[in-house]
Amino acid sequence: MTAPGVGSVLIVGSGLIGASIGLALRARGVTVWLEDADPESVRVAVERGAGLPGPPSTDPELVMVAVPPVVAASVIVECLRRYLDATVSDVASTKTRLQREVESYGPDVGRFVPGHPLAGREVSGPAAARADLFADRVWALTPSTATDPDRTDQVAGLVESLGAVVVRTTPEEHDRAVALTSHTPQVVSSLVAAGLDSLGAAEVRLSGQGLRDMTRLAGSDPDLWTEILTSNAEPVSAAIDSLIERLAVVRDGLRGERGGPASVHAALSAGVLGQAKVPGKHGTEPVPYAVVPVVIEDRPGELGRLFASAARTGVNLEDVRIDHAQGRPTGLVELEVRPASSAALAAGLREDGFEVRD
Amino acid sequence: MTAPGVGSVLIVGSGLIGASIGLALRARGVTVWLEDADPESVRVAVERGAGLPGPPSTDPELVMVAVPPVVAASVIVECLRRYLDATVSDVASTKTRLQREVESYGPDVGRFVPGHPLAGREVSGPAAARADLFADRVWALTPSTATDPDRTDQVAGLVESLGAVVVRTTPEEHDRAVALTSHTPQVVSSLVAAGLDSLGAAEVRLSGQGLRDMTRLAGSDPDLWTEILTSNAEPVSAAIDSLIERLAVVRDGLRGERGGPASVHAALSAGVLGQAKVPGKHGTEPVPYAVVPVVIEDRPGELGRLFASAARTGVNLEDVRIDHAQGRPTGLVELEVRPASSAALAAGLREDGFEVRD
Repeated sequence: MTAPGVGSVLIVGSGLIGASIGLALRARGVTVWLEDADPESVRVAVERGAGLPGPPSTDPELVMVAVPPVVAASVIVECLRRYLDATVSDVASTKTRLQREVESYGPDVGRFVPGHPLAGREVSGPAAARADLFADRVWALTPSTATDPDRTDQVAGLVESLGAVVVRTTPEEHDRAVALTSHTPQVVSSLVAAGLDSLGAAEVRLSGQGLRDMTRLAGSDPDLWTEILTSNAEPVSAAIDSLIERLAVVRDGLRGERGGPASVHAALSAGVLGQAKVPGKHGTEPVPYAVVPVVIEDRPGELGRLFASAARTGVNLEDVRIDHAQGRPTGLVELEVRPASSAALAAGLREDGFEVRD
Repeated sequence: MTAPGVGSVLIVGSGLIGASIGLALRARGVTVWLEDADPESVRVAVERGAGLPGPPSTDPELVMVAVPPVVAASVIVECLRRYLDATVSDVASTKTRLQREVESYGPDVGRFVPGHPLAGREVSGPAAARADLFADRVWALTPSTATDPDRTDQVAGLVESLGAVVVRTTPEEHDRAVALTSHTPQVVSSLVAAGLDSLGAAEVRLSGQGLRDMTRLAGSDPDLWTEILTSNAEPVSAAIDSLIERLAVVRDGLRGERGGPASVHAALSAGVLGQAKVPGKHGTEPVPYAVVPVVIEDRPGELGRLFASAARTGVNLEDVRIDHAQGRPTGLVELEVRPASSAALAAGLREDGFEVRD
């Protein structure tokens, strides 16, 4: 556990992210105050042990703004005005427009160090806060030319003390990256799902795991995502534009125009290369896992028996995928392991009577 | 086990699908002959018990053509010519062009009943064949106006005897459906992945589970998929065209044109509705599972301990997702269960010392 490098922090916004930062900093001996537009949110966060209720009794060394993106700029500017020596950072998921707004209206904007933790959000609110929410997660810091480098180092130290991995980039590169890795995929998932509306109940059954993967994001909250997408409108619309162009090449290829099937093949081949760049479960380097497919009965206990058997082999499972058939009470479980371990796992499972496919 | 309704079947093409049909029919007492352009493929399939090596000693009642799509039409036509009383069916994944070709060149095309089993293909070849490959899988039958309805019923009976669920539709509706549920998602996944090529190594790390889901299909074989996409060129290019139009609406909305943010919100909302139509793991009806999130250490044995604990609760797990953090030796496991079972599972896991998130 490295030292946070600051003695006192005010967290404005006591939701999942803010309260989790509070819990982590408290565990590291930092004095933490919590504020929120919603007093109940502060109450729950304080009860969880994430800090003391604000306002701070003395000026904090650092202010972490963890409010919804739509109010982030005004809260950041207000904090720069309230605390004339403090470093101010934030956690908003898009950075360019926010930076522009802070630089337009804020005093002494060199003290503002913009940040974006890429942490899980399957739940929300301070009740779900966890001190280890950021452990080994990527946390982007996006200083602009106006940002004081010493302040950036200070925030980087604090972020690393939470266990996160700092990735430094510019606001513009950050926003272009999340447009490609997160925002455009969200739009595409929604539109692929929306395209199913013309299918009858029988025809939509002509689908499999691929469609489930591709449409999972489409279940997300439209309010939240409209806010996120409009906050990153320029990079996302540019990314969509580029996607439209590449889709048009494939469409024309299928119609025998442009390069014909060769341009379809080229697009798919570029996809294979791109897919290899996607970070694996363990982050920085995509790891090509070996897949051990096992057929099991879909009934209580079978998965337990399978994983107990896998545990006896001592092989670490990197991922698990369960491919139930449509309406079918049996299933295929794909165990992903490091390639060197796959033979040992397969042999061990077979010894325990499992059907491992070749 | 229902009766197949035929006494003898010739299977042309002894790969995964053909050999699996053979195994299933043999188990049901049907006389099966196997042919393949590759004698080794026949040898392995025969050795597996999928049937006798062809040619048949007497005319088969039914011929199942399970060859690669690019040669399907000529093999079907040849079989209609060779066996003048037999019903001929096939398993090609696109139907309209094939139907047109068979009707152009084949004699007595009323005997041809086109089909398409939606069965797993993570492995291939006769060595991977399984008698239960089609159990509770959807198997589309796409008779045209030329098809003899009695022959369609005969093939439906055979398909149902393999445990599959018959979905009857037209060749055109089938191809439009798979264009939307499978072929366009494949193209989109490839292009989203290809779009990452402009990102640096640091920026591509600004991604999460969503990107992994959206780009998984992009790892597929470009040769195979070029063949599939070109065999369904018209419906796929139409579906891409429609997707381009909807992407343009979102792009323009983000630029403040057309409906502005309202049209972005409308597109995302349509995606939520579309996603709800996607068949769940168990097929016909999407089942809204409850998610029980559990935090575990990522080391050998932990998953085994978790699943053994889950098994003791008697609750059946419908799905498992493991969300490792980037570079992080701990992980979040999401157990999906029927909603009525989630409280019992969470309580049981907590008793065994697991950290279950709220």
